[in-house]
Amino acid sequence: MRRETRLDKPANTIYKMNIRTIDWKNGKVRIIDQTQLPQKLVYLNIDKIEDLWRAIKTMQVRGAPALGAAAALGMYLGIRNYPGVDWSGFSRKLNAVARYISSSRPTARNLFWGMERVYGVALKNNKQPVSKIKQIILKEGKRIMQEDISSCRKIGFYGAQLLKHNSRVLTICNAGILATIDYGTALGVIYSACAQNKKIKVFSCETRPLLQGSRLSAWELYKQGVDVTMIADNTAASLMAQGKVDLVIAGADRIAANGDSANKIGTLNLAILCKYHKIPFYIAAPGSTFDFRIKSGREIKIEMRNTGEVTNILFKKRIAPAGVNAINPAFDVTAHQLISAIITDKGVIRPPYIENIRKIIGGNKCI
Amino acid sequence: MRRETRLDKPANTIYKMNIRTIDWKNGKVRIIDQTQLPQKLVYLNIDKIEDLWRAIKTMQVRGAPALGAAAALGMYLGIRNYPGVDWSGFSRKLNAVARYISSSRPTARNLFWGMERVYGVALKNNKQPVSKIKQIILKEGKRIMQEDISSCRKIGFYGAQLLKHNSRVLTICNAGILATIDYGTALGVIYSACAQNKKIKVFSCETRPLLQGSRLSAWELYKQGVDVTMIADNTAASLMAQGKVDLVIAGADRIAANGDSANKIGTLNLAILCKYHKIPFYIAAPGSTFDFRIKSGREIKIEMRNTGEVTNILFKKRIAPAGVNAINPAFDVTAHQLISAIITDKGVIRPPYIENIRKIIGGNKCI
Repeated sequence: MRRETRLDKPANTIYKMNIRTIDWKNGKVRIIDQTQLPQKLVYLNIDKIEDLWRAIKTMQVRGAPALGAAAALGMYLGIRNYPGVDWSGFSRKLNAVARYISSSRPTARNLFWGMERVYGVALKNNKQPVSKIKQIILKEGKRIMQEDISSCRKIGFYGAQLLKHNSRVLTICNAGILATIDYGTALGVIYSACAQNKKIKVFSCETRPLLQGSRLSAWELYKQGVDVTMIADNTAASLMAQGKVDLVIAGADRIAANGDSANKIGTLNLAILCKYHKIPFYIAAPGSTFDFRIKSGREIKIEMRNTGEVTNILFKKRIAPAGVNAINPAFDVTAHQLISAIITDKGVIRPPYIENIRKIIGGNKCI
Repeated sequence: MRRETRLDKPANTIYKMNIRTIDWKNGKVRIIDQTQLPQKLVYLNIDKIEDLWRAIKTMQVRGAPALGAAAALGMYLGIRNYPGVDWSGFSRKLNAVARYISSSRPTARNLFWGMERVYGVALKNNKQPVSKIKQIILKEGKRIMQEDISSCRKIGFYGAQLLKHNSRVLTICNAGILATIDYGTALGVIYSACAQNKKIKVFSCETRPLLQGSRLSAWELYKQGVDVTMIADNTAASLMAQGKVDLVIAGADRIAANGDSANKIGTLNLAILCKYHKIPFYIAAPGSTFDFRIKSGREIKIEMRNTGEVTNILFKKRIAPAGVNAINPAFDVTAHQLISAIITDKGVIRPPYIENIRKIIGGNKCI
């Protein structure tokens, strides 16, 4: 029996998860605390902007699309108790909240995009009473979440066409349910292919230092019933050399106008290994990840994180001798020449990227 | 003040370590228990072949050259209480011990080489009384250790010529003091360059799954006063793309007649990244690592290790969801086309490898 592929709703028998990475519940931002996975599925209810900032910083919530929603809802948390009634004071407050949220993690484009969306609707409605603008902001945050769900399904739909029955896909970090509101980008492509009854085998690179590949991707893929095998990041080249990988799909945190893509550290490794082994390398991301203000990857600011993530395992077990230096860039940039295609909610973009990204994602977003 | 470089003894002010990875002391094999580093420097005294087998299997002692000595001394442990007096029974026992030791770890050539050396001297002296042959075997084990010390110094001497003042070297796993009797192969090259007063910066890939890069290499480099920075394995490509790595040196566990080299999983990744970034990639290993019976890397048997090394951190902290599959090959094979040169105790070997390896290491070892 062949199940129909539906853009907005894959077959329920395939898509079993009933979780939302981030949501608005009872006047609070409800997130899954991703630092506790895979051991425990714990939800946090956040009503203070400072707590949300910390949740972003410590990666209790992470993943570029999820951060877009977190930032938008964070804007609401930051202004909802603002006592003033005039736009100019409110606008200054909004800007201050945005600057505060921006200081949490600099690389993910969606974080900034989420705040820009919120600021945009506020500005558009600046003649309304402040109390009304606050409600508009909250509504925009909810809309961003709804759009993200739909956007992930579309990415899945377009991307699944690149996967064959029995495709063996290697991925890094977590660009899945837990990186979005639901469904995922890179993993959404896999879920979508599975919903088309394609048999897919996934290799999940564990993704040191924070192990999102084992803790998060392996968790959700396994729960979803997808055939997933964990590997140390070091094993990717060996698998490719043995002809055991058909394609690689990774997410993205920020994509420059020329297609250069920042994603979790180690993604560039995989793209180069793909080039060498003549294996397609795909990026999967929604339109909100594109940054037309940035011409090339060289301009992308890379977040440097606490070196304790490298010298220790999840800040606990120390693995390095005391006193030894470490460096811990959270992302690397994959040059567009290494990317076979970018799978977006608007379709699959292939080179030449500068023209095609502008055409498909819309250059009118350029500022 | 410029210190003299000496082949057998680097300046004491530079080479501070006073440890031996493996030794023969008071009728026992004394090893450093490498599973306890970097937290504790603990020596184990082993007098039973079964305990040595376990020490090799669990990597309390590891590193191809150190395993050559461990195997030779293990042969002695295995036969020293043999009660028979005739060669034919003794020879069968020797073979049985060799088969037993072989079953511990299949990839490192030196393990087999050490046993072959021992069997060779026993065979050559098979007219001697068994008690005398036993002593000859122990003496051969000690000779292997002495030769390895000298061999590492020579590798260091030849390899140091490839390093400039201010060279930034990236390495993987541990091909240092702790992989040999003393001094190391890849790290021996670095120690030797430092002894020539060259300022060297080292990036040590942590080397998942067993973290030899952080636990062992960072430990000994730091103790030695070398400028070492730890990185997650995923960070290598990013550093290279930023022009921060001048060369890569790795050890080897088995080198085929054509130069294809098996080494710790992840080495192939680095070799491909070097090719892409036009950075020299070197292998450092003694003659005992070459296997002329193996024409190419495809014939090298790769040890598959316990998947608990991947799903957990050092068999403790679980990082993967229960039930998820993993694969854990201990080594990968780097094709000779990716290797700029092989630094050996007989000199630096460059392509074409088939001819030059035979010429420099000695094809007469071909069986």
